Amino acid sequence: MNTIGHIYRLTSFGESHGPAIGGVIDGIPAGVEINLDEVQRQLDRRRPGQSSIVTARDEKDRLKVLSGLFEGRTLGTPIGFMVENTDHHSADYENVRHTFRPSHADFTFTRKYGLRDHRGGGRSSARETISRVVAGAFARQVLQTVGIEIYAYTSQVGDIALEPNYLHYDLASIDSNDVRCPDPAIAKRMREKIERVKAAGDTIGGVVTGLIRGCPVGLGDPAFGKLHALLAGAMMSINAAKGFDYGMGFAECGRLGSEMIDRFRVNEEGEIHTLTNHSGGIQGGISNGEDIYFRVAFKPVATLLREVETINDASQPVTLKARGRHDPCVLPRAVPVVEAMAAMVVLDAYLANKTCRM
Amino acid sequence: MNTIGHIYRLTSFGESHGPAIGGVIDGIPAGVEINLDEVQRQLDRRRPGQSSIVTARDEKDRLKVLSGLFEGRTLGTPIGFMVENTDHHSADYENVRHTFRPSHADFTFTRKYGLRDHRGGGRSSARETISRVVAGAFARQVLQTVGIEIYAYTSQVGDIALEPNYLHYDLASIDSNDVRCPDPAIAKRMREKIERVKAAGDTIGGVVTGLIRGCPVGLGDPAFGKLHALLAGAMMSINAAKGFDYGMGFAECGRLGSEMIDRFRVNEEGEIHTLTNHSGGIQGGISNGEDIYFRVAFKPVATLLREVETINDASQPVTLKARGRHDPCVLPRAVPVVEAMAAMVVLDAYLANKTCRM
Amino acid sequence: MNTIGHIYRLTSFGESHGPAIGGVIDGIPAGVEINLDEVQRQLDRRRPGQSSIVTARDEKDRLKVLSGLFEGRTLGTPIGFMVENTDHHSADYENVRHTFRPSHADFTFTRKYGLRDHRGGGRSSARETISRVVAGAFARQVLQTVGIEIYAYTSQVGDIALEPNYLHYDLASIDSNDVRCPDPAIAKRMREKIERVKAAGDTIGGVVTGLIRGCPVGLGDPAFGKLHALLAGAMMSINAAKGFDYGMGFAECGRLGSEMIDRFRVNEEGEIHTLTNHSGGIQGGISNGEDIYFRVAFKPVATLLREVETINDASQPVTLKARGRHDPCVLPRAVPVVEAMAAMVVLDAYLANKTCRM
Amino acid sequence: MNTIGHIYRLTSFGESHGPAIGGVIDGIPAGVEINLDEVQRQLDRRRPGQSSIVTARDEKDRLKVLSGLFEGRTLGTPIGFMVENTDHHSADYENVRHTFRPSHADFTFTRKYGLRDHRGGGRSSARETISRVVAGAFARQVLQTVGIEIYAYTSQVGDIALEPNYLHYDLASIDSNDVRCPDPAIAKRMREKIERVKAAGDTIGGVVTGLIRGCPVGLGDPAFGKLHALLAGAMMSINAAKGFDYGMGFAECGRLGSEMIDRFRVNEEGEIHTLTNHSGGIQGGISNGEDIYFRVAFKPVATLLREVETINDASQPVTLKARGRHDPCVLPRAVPVVEAMAAMVVLDAYLANKTCRM
Repeated sequence: MNTIGHIYRLTSFGESHGPAIGGVIDGIPAGVEINLDEVQRQLDRRRPGQSSIVTARDEKDRLKVLSGLFEGRTLGTPIGFMVENTDHHSADYENVRHTFRPSHADFTFTRKYGLRDHRGGGRSSARETISRVVAGAFARQVLQTVGIEIYAYTSQVGDIALEPNYLHYDLASIDSNDVRCPDPAIAKRMREKIERVKAAGDTIGGVVTGLIRGCPVGLGDPAFGKLHALLAGAMMSINAAKGFDYGMGFAECGRLGSEMIDRFRVNEEGEIHTLTNHSGGIQGGISNGEDIYFRVAFKPVATLLREVETINDASQPVTLKARGRHDPCVLPRAVPVVEAMAAMVVLDAYLANKTCRM
Repeated sequence: MNTIGHIYRLTSFGESHGPAIGGVIDGIPAGVEINLDEVQRQLDRRRPGQSSIVTARDEKDRLKVLSGLFEGRTLGTPIGFMVENTDHHSADYENVRHTFRPSHADFTFTRKYGLRDHRGGGRSSARETISRVVAGAFARQVLQTVGIEIYAYTSQVGDIALEPNYLHYDLASIDSNDVRCPDPAIAKRMREKIERVKAAGDTIGGVVTGLIRGCPVGLGDPAFGKLHALLAGAMMSINAAKGFDYGMGFAECGRLGSEMIDRFRVNEEGEIHTLTNHSGGIQGGISNGEDIYFRVAFKPVATLLREVETINDASQPVTLKARGRHDPCVLPRAVPVVEAMAAMVVLDAYLANKTCRM
Repeated sequence: MNTIGHIYRLTSFGESHGPAIGGVIDGIPAGVEINLDEVQRQLDRRRPGQSSIVTARDEKDRLKVLSGLFEGRTLGTPIGFMVENTDHHSADYENVRHTFRPSHADFTFTRKYGLRDHRGGGRSSARETISRVVAGAFARQVLQTVGIEIYAYTSQVGDIALEPNYLHYDLASIDSNDVRCPDPAIAKRMREKIERVKAAGDTIGGVVTGLIRGCPVGLGDPAFGKLHALLAGAMMSINAAKGFDYGMGFAECGRLGSEMIDRFRVNEEGEIHTLTNHSGGIQGGISNGEDIYFRVAFKPVATLLREVETINDASQPVTLKARGRHDPCVLPRAVPVVEAMAAMVVLDAYLANKTCRM
Repeated sequence: MNTIGHIYRLTSFGESHGPAIGGVIDGIPAGVEINLDEVQRQLDRRRPGQSSIVTARDEKDRLKVLSGLFEGRTLGTPIGFMVENTDHHSADYENVRHTFRPSHADFTFTRKYGLRDHRGGGRSSARETISRVVAGAFARQVLQTVGIEIYAYTSQVGDIALEPNYLHYDLASIDSNDVRCPDPAIAKRMREKIERVKAAGDTIGGVVTGLIRGCPVGLGDPAFGKLHALLAGAMMSINAAKGFDYGMGFAECGRLGSEMIDRFRVNEEGEIHTLTNHSGGIQGGISNGEDIYFRVAFKPVATLLREVETINDASQPVTLKARGRHDPCVLPRAVPVVEAMAAMVVLDAYLANKTCRM
């Protein structure tokens, strides 16, 4: 299943070294002005080759929109789009044609489908997230028309972590450094950490924190479509994701109910809010109008830039040294992907919410 | 959206104090013998009133199967089922008819839909999980015909936690105590903790660990349908869930790739396995034949058995004292729900996998 | 797949001689007052035993609503419902346990699933339409709040047919006779025809005409979700349906474009309408505000009340004489089912249409 | 909703004069060899400009496959594809920018979405069927690996009609003439009819007959997913379709059950078949192994090549003369579209059927 969403839906396609990565966005509301430069800017944030701490693969990653726009506005019809794969170094992967790299999809994909495109990870490559970033960038522009804003940032790399509370940070500074961490001093330490790991031919994991602001009360459903369940499914489908929590999350397990409940207050405008927001902006699966915040854990990528012992598809031992271009840490490039997935989920829930009363 | 799954699908219905909770299971394979006593046994594990540490609500929770079985076997047609709500103490909730309890769905539900059934939480009640347990119990019996087994247990209550590695424990002893923790000594401490919290009119959170054994290679898809993404979406849709991770999960963020990759080995039967299993049995979203393990974090339930200041639907301050029967800790009763959701996700992926080759 | 619809969805369950027939209605808007007596009245219109020209099976067919309503209004949560099967004459079917009746689902169902519930047709029984009538009756009440009305009537039995144009008839008189034909004289001839056919142990086919009035402009999508495609799929899923057309339908094949195009006119209120309505109220898959009319062809039912030569599941010849209670003509009872399917499709499209702009 | 299918799914995109028409095929089984020349050949059959009786628009309609194939075989991943729109004569449509052509989607689309791409019909153009033909051509090649073959032909143009029974005709001769009618003499008369109608600036309707051979027993479901209901929904979603029936179809309404039931016979190989096939290869919604045959009615296209009185979007009368290139009769080019939709529906049902037993 390569479709996500119920009303706002992305159907994606593409292998890393095939002709193109792309997708179809269906269910986008009609009449919304779209700034394609801004969509491209989001793609550029995801693009490899931005700095020394991410892979040097120098894809242009130019978006081509194939349908759905007319004179700058959405038609309400599907947005077909693609990004051509122009910087193929497919020969780099010839040595893995018959080899199963440890902790990659090589073995599982081959056993499931009976064959695989071994070049650059094929469908299991993180290049697949291009489609997500595009569909997320469209969703974001739609959401901005109703005042919903989405942010994400690198909050942990290895053992270097920010304060849990996003309110400590200036979100405008997220893109001021190539780690995408809103604390410049800690960003510098994270960057040094990544450089050291890279120099050792190793990789490192971390955490991205996401934030959704301006969400009205009412998004999400009481049962399977809880807003945080949709966010969890979406985030966990990002390559290398290992965990998700929202609000106080795992930290809440050790706490008492009396510490965690968010008491109501009525503000000067007569609007109902909560004094605290341990819940993370969602109650009973439905947004309550407060900030929605969550974390996504990413593992260290499995491609080490050093020799690794593994096996081939004849179950024989082989020694492998990766030759492609790889990230020592996915976090900086995962940030725009997390934002994109959040935007898609929220827009989908926003549109669904229009149907819950006549 | 009250349906979960693509091929094996549960569509659920029911409010806490309405006539019944139930659902329709669609897509169950034909010809499978079903032991309804075993389905009822799973419901009984979820049932309130089992011990002093869970809510005293004494529902009989008797399963009625309305269709889909013939002479003890599945027909391949939908299984309609219901559990009647017989132990109504609806009057207990009259005081919350116009009140928004803090950290409940009262406010968000009412704002979304314009009205709510205030009795016992209505659709947002954890009684909704009855449908999940039933559909999971059916799925489980189907999975057992192909050797797939599912386990879950309480691994943390407050600050009392088991070893992370499930291999330390005897899974056969999970149900030997009412906390559903496979370490009897720690179970005793957890139970004491819950009793203390309850005595104080408070509640406490914790973690359930899940385990799927015997899963063949090949379940799950490369993109949005990654097996762990489906698990995450399913688990996070359980009432009170706040976080999900699998394999090394959040702990993996602080680690190096060289520590985390799972090297292959070929066993004496010539089968490919991994030496370690940090990945948690899933590579690139597809099961690799190793054990799949994961954690689900649960918050302390929001209903405190003490006076709480809150507001009513006219935005006026009110004082509330819960009178219904409530769990001081959801963990013991969440265990069968986690198992049920896992069974549904795995069976759905198992059936989907049949279609990926001609 | 036992679910129909995208936003307003019915998931149905039930075998003819199982405990109950029922379903779950999901996606119904919140806050709509529901008259359950009116839902029961629709069920009664579908009910066997109403007159001598339909099956004498005397089911009470009492609707039980299990969830989703609160103080007379929809909660926005799923409506679980069921109708118990109380008038079992299962023994009547013992003779077909191992027999494949000609032009029934016995053979195909058994080969597909490996087993079947032979009693009363099991899942393939027309009793399955109970769920449709209930979900349609709910949909209809929702549609009435926005002025959309739905009608159907028997327009042909054997070679006795009404004028094609529904404007010739007084729709208020549809239920004035047990054939459900709005022309009393022709209804009488149809009834006599059915009686004669029945007396001969035979059955007869016919046509139901459907009509949707008050539909706003904009329902339906340009591609796969054309409103008439959704209607076609829904109608053709009714037991015994063999054909569907809308507007001028099959008659349009022999005509010129210049005869068939519907020219626009602007009425005194400045509203855009068409002078003719050969199109049947839908242009390019989207409703244009005119009346939507269509036909559904039904075959003569395959159960003859005489001896029939057939084979058993050991491929041996057997002689069979049906003993159950069967309709000599499905048309009268198909009328409320056609209306129900139309109501579901239109409400689904109506709700979807709310999401096509921000 | 621009997706059709449950397991084998096409999501399509594209406006007539936008950059491209295309789609994503999801759920195609892995490891199937694909002959892309054959896919292109199907596109060429649909292509305008093939002869004087279809539109002269001379699109190259070259297929570009963007993903999902590797060394000539399907990967099991989505097939992204597109056909660029290279023969734009968009200026031809400037006169309809503010005009609503009668019996087109101009009015309904504009009212639904608030804007439209007026060039060449935009999303409502029959160019959208390019995506269907591509996805159908892939499906067909998959079906051929299990011996399922699909045919369609023009069986009626205006009042010139073939015998209803397809067995009268040599299906190998369908493409021997540009009407795609298997009777050369009648094809000649149809062609002359179309030429006459075209000379008069008019258009004409007709019927396509479809045939599915080699389908195993068991495809389709008992309730909403009846195989003929899926076919109906798919066929009726083709531009200009007005009606669908299968087996004896509408003709069955006037017949007795005793005439229509298909008695079983056991052939020399011991296989169960029917003596007649009035049912059209489907019993109770499930294929019975006999030929599946059906008809699709198409209206005369609404674009007349003469002056037409209509209104503009300010509700003022205007006179319009179409200047684009248009078909006087859609039938010849509808044939490959009908085949494509049939192939998609059958493959989807074939794959679903794999999941109905363990």
